[in-house]
Amino acid sequence: MSDPSVYRLNSKEVARATEEWLAKRGVTKGQIGQLVMLLQKDYFPELTLDECIVNVESVLSKREVQNAILTGIQLDMLAEEGKLLPPLQNMIFNDEGLYGCDEVLALSIVNVYGSIGFTNFGYIDKFKPGVLKKLNERNGKDVHTFLDDIVGAIAAAASSRIAHRKQAEREAMEEALSGGDSGPDTP
Amino acid sequence: MSDPSVYRLNSKEVARATEEWLAKRGVTKGQIGQLVMLLQKDYFPELTLDECIVNVESVLSKREVQNAILTGIQLDMLAEEGKLLPPLQNMIFNDEGLYGCDEVLALSIVNVYGSIGFTNFGYIDKFKPGVLKKLNERNGKDVHTFLDDIVGAIAAAASSRIAHRKQAEREAMEEALSGGDSGPDTP
Amino acid sequence: MSDPSVYRLNSKEVARATEEWLAKRGVTKGQIGQLVMLLQKDYFPELTLDECIVNVESVLSKREVQNAILTGIQLDMLAEEGKLLPPLQNMIFNDEGLYGCDEVLALSIVNVYGSIGFTNFGYIDKFKPGVLKKLNERNGKDVHTFLDDIVGAIAAAASSRIAHRKQAEREAMEEALSGGDSGPDTP
Amino acid sequence: MSDPSVYRLNSKEVARATEEWLAKRGVTKGQIGQLVMLLQKDYFPELTLDECIVNVESVLSKREVQNAILTGIQLDMLAEEGKLLPPLQNMIFNDEGLYGCDEVLALSIVNVYGSIGFTNFGYIDKFKPGVLKKLNERNGKDVHTFLDDIVGAIAAAASSRIAHRKQAEREAMEEALSGGDSGPDTP
Repeated sequence: MSDPSVYRLNSKEVARATEEWLAKRGVTKGQIGQLVMLLQKDYFPELTLDECIVNVESVLSKREVQNAILTGIQLDMLAEEGKLLPPLQNMIFNDEGLYGCDEVLALSIVNVYGSIGFTNFGYIDKFKPGVLKKLNERNGKDVHTFLDDIVGAIAAAASSRIAHRKQAEREAMEEALSGGDSGPDTP
Repeated sequence: MSDPSVYRLNSKEVARATEEWLAKRGVTKGQIGQLVMLLQKDYFPELTLDECIVNVESVLSKREVQNAILTGIQLDMLAEEGKLLPPLQNMIFNDEGLYGCDEVLALSIVNVYGSIGFTNFGYIDKFKPGVLKKLNERNGKDVHTFLDDIVGAIAAAASSRIAHRKQAEREAMEEALSGGDSGPDTP
Repeated sequence: MSDPSVYRLNSKEVARATEEWLAKRGVTKGQIGQLVMLLQKDYFPELTLDECIVNVESVLSKREVQNAILTGIQLDMLAEEGKLLPPLQNMIFNDEGLYGCDEVLALSIVNVYGSIGFTNFGYIDKFKPGVLKKLNERNGKDVHTFLDDIVGAIAAAASSRIAHRKQAEREAMEEALSGGDSGPDTP
Repeated sequence: MSDPSVYRLNSKEVARATEEWLAKRGVTKGQIGQLVMLLQKDYFPELTLDECIVNVESVLSKREVQNAILTGIQLDMLAEEGKLLPPLQNMIFNDEGLYGCDEVLALSIVNVYGSIGFTNFGYIDKFKPGVLKKLNERNGKDVHTFLDDIVGAIAAAASSRIAHRKQAEREAMEEALSGGDSGPDTP
């Protein structure tokens, strides 16, 4: 029976809100998984969409990532409703090119799986494939200034995670094949 | 007579809003200058408060910095008014320890004058001297979750700027004294 | 029987080298653990040194962290041996204040456990407690320009990890006590 | 006549070394300028190569940028000569995919002109146009693991600089045309 006046972080609620807000803004894990597939299929031909989605889920389970998603979507929504103060309202509503806080938040997502994700983030953010194209269509109503960078960052982070995992799998297999002592300095 | 329906960034308006919002939230350039003084006086004993303020003004003139300030203050104000959605509302209102988007935005300010500012930012963000102490007093009403990190970041960036400038001044003076050819490979 | 002319990353070798190089440069996990203790004991009075060391080991197991450690130590060693080209040799040998690549690499370590570690990194990098003091004593021979920032960054990252873990533990305990349905929207 | 035993940073020497090392490694300002042209010509059709080169020179004049260039090229050269310790030697020599310190240093260059450069950096780092293609050709001898990311980062930073400048030019022209009082809140 906790005192409701005392603030207590509830991690499950944060995780749940992240999923809900992404869904409400029209982004599914499957769509992000497809971006991952696009980024990684040339390197891992056997990669499946399900595997990509599992990696997206792992990225989404990180608090750092959840914080950036909630903050970015909140700003998009407020800009959509015209509730930010000018000139911030105009910059976010119009996805102003010289406004970079969306990239800053996105990069904090990429960073969680390390610097090898920077390139993938930039690539996908430039080409806007799949769901990113939809998020970038301007109809004078919907605002996805933060969300499109965030979705690209999630895909880039999941790609980094896959690259690390695949390497671990390969080494485990080599070790098994060699009888378990393939270390570099074994005789 | 430009068409009002067409969005056009107005940089002066962004700069002006930055100054206004900082003032409205109770932060003066003099206060930030004092933080800079605190950070730099041991290294440059002859440093004056006016000089510190001039460097703060230089930092504040950067678009990247203005964007972070406006975005952070806006989120603080909305949290104060209870206008963010839970659980983000609670995290920002209570300056939740595991919420790091405030540090992320602050670091984008520090970065503008390079990596040597990281240490000063962390130091000042831990000790909360001067105006930072006031910003951190919790009265159940005012929210400065973003602003205190942002002010610390501005002071850290201004300190980096001073370190670069002082080096340039010293070299210029040495060059003048040596007759203008103090290059390292002159005979 | 793999072709020795073909490059293959061996993750175990990278992990092992990281441990060896740290030890060779005079830094133990216990010393880093003590830095973590210093940073976290006020927040978690029950924290033990063993627990801190376990968290340091977790940080050290990350590839991103290992890469930064190996690269930084290598540059320190080469500067010690005078094998870098001027002016880089002089800047690293003398831990030049306007040279920030050491902070840049260190921050890539902090980032792995998220932005809440920035503050701890800056604080510890300024005060140089414990092993950091020793690393910073200049005897005209040893060079630890990169290593001292790296060790501070490992301690800061381990502190972030602890903060996340402690929160998870607290929530798990609350859930157990409340019969497993303490979710925010249960009736 | 300064005491040679006392270390003194000489900024001109650092700037000069940066130019020399880039040239020695086969990269000209013109080639980086062409990358900038590629990134920006769609946004600013009137942009000239000379203008791009001027902006590249501005980026190269920053200490933060010079530090990253010297450090990265030094590591490339040492890897080329086989003078790094294994396993770092192998990772840098082979441009290991899971080694990200090259991206980390590159990002510190991009950051100097703000977060809007992340996307351009990632894009160009993925496609390797112009001089980047040459830097990435592996002949078993030359190592440009750091340099190719660094060159991409310089081009991305110069592009950010151009974006900021062009906006300032546009606003100055509008103000001149409107008689100097085109402020947003003039009647």
